[in-house]
Amino acid sequence: DWAFADDDCLIFGRETGGLPEKVHRENWDRCVTIPMLNPKVRSLNLAVSVGIVLYEALRQTGAFRKT
Amino acid sequence: DWAFADDDCLIFGRETGGLPEKVHRENWDRCVTIPMLNPKVRSLNLAVSVGIVLYEALRQTGAFRKT
Repeated sequence: DWAFADDDCLIFGRETGGLPEKVHRENWDRCVTIPMLNPKVRSLNLAVSVGIVLYEALRQTGAFRKT
Repeated sequence: DWAFADDDCLIFGRETGGLPEKVHRENWDRCVTIPMLNPKVRSLNLAVSVGIVLYEALRQTGAFRKT
């Protein structure tokens, strides 16, 4: 679980290889993954991933309640 | 806001026209929409929508905690 804040910046990696190892190493404590129930699934489509993470971030920061 | 249950069944409509009006009429109290912050956006991509709704349903029903 991750707590998102208003000024968070999100960086997404490629579907095939993810983010460069350097980015992982330097931000290890800030890396989040989307839980996936089927272990045979290698990765989620990037647009779907962005949709899920943005939805969760906006939900947590209350953006949907301000409209 | 919507409370999902374990045996819920999800039906999604087309990006262009949504679900048939008959489905809306007969399930008015069970229709949910994904909040969208930009009023100029007509609809979300269907795969992205399914990703968001499935994520929210699985989150609420605790599926991610069972793994």
